[in-house]
Amino acid sequence: MKILLITYDNCDDSEVLYPYFRMLEEGCEVDVASLERRTINAKYHFKIDAGLLPEEINAADYDGLILPGGTAPEKLRQNQRILDAVSYMMDKGLPVASICHGQQILISTGRLKGRTATCYPGIRDDLINAGANYVNERVVVDGNLVTSRRPEDLPYFMGEFVKLLRK
Amino acid sequence: MKILLITYDNCDDSEVLYPYFRMLEEGCEVDVASLERRTINAKYHFKIDAGLLPEEINAADYDGLILPGGTAPEKLRQNQRILDAVSYMMDKGLPVASICHGQQILISTGRLKGRTATCYPGIRDDLINAGANYVNERVVVDGNLVTSRRPEDLPYFMGEFVKLLRK
Repeated sequence: MKILLITYDNCDDSEVLYPYFRMLEEGCEVDVASLERRTINAKYHFKIDAGLLPEEINAADYDGLILPGGTAPEKLRQNQRILDAVSYMMDKGLPVASICHGQQILISTGRLKGRTATCYPGIRDDLINAGANYVNERVVVDGNLVTSRRPEDLPYFMGEFVKLLRK
Repeated sequence: MKILLITYDNCDDSEVLYPYFRMLEEGCEVDVASLERRTINAKYHFKIDAGLLPEEINAADYDGLILPGGTAPEKLRQNQRILDAVSYMMDKGLPVASICHGQQILISTGRLKGRTATCYPGIRDDLINAGANYVNERVVVDGNLVTSRRPEDLPYFMGEFVKLLRK
């Protein structure tokens, strides 16, 4: 299986590290897309190489999508090619896992109307204004969409995403 | 299932974070033991609360053991109660996962004679002098013992440990 992970500088270390390693453990191939083709520096220490530019993403190639948090999503949501790729995967009903501020990207795709989801408390009102049914739980599964609030939720976030991928 | 994780300040962030979250994802209860009962500060940013002192560990309570790396093991291997707990679990053949410098604790228990294992390259000679058959692979399974070299090996390290726990 092939997974797309989209992130940028100042992503949360654990929100990239845990899903990335977890997908490798699961035997998946993971492509990292970002705004520049270079080593991406997480907020504290973790580094990950981004091999794909937004215009190089072929969303039809992937079985699942991961959107980690941090301040990276505020940059990523401004790129139309990123939004196009995420929208494609949402519209196809492919497994999408978004945590913390990753949901800012989903908000910008306009794909959260009527969807039940959670997010970091600081952007809760934006999720609600985007038309989502906000719930404060460590992990929320609504069809293809898995959302969580923060790093501490990662074990449950990935547990549900792995279940969706195995279906 | 109940897992014991032994670590201390200056552990490697990812070598604590990934196994800890992975065990929670697996539905395990994880007890963190350390030299002091307080919040333990990993090398860069990650923090984890240690609830058990060495003298409070009842090794018979656990189904598996995790020894992360960093410079923490150099401190931990000097504590006899830590060595007693690790020795007990090795002698009972319970699943033991040790990565990077975690193997310094195993060396000090004298339980590596004739065992096939790997470790961080900087302590390879110590592993060999302790009587182990050193191999340079991302993960090595020898009976109950799972060893790896460094953070990048974590997906494969935990993959094998989870397999052992499920047996």
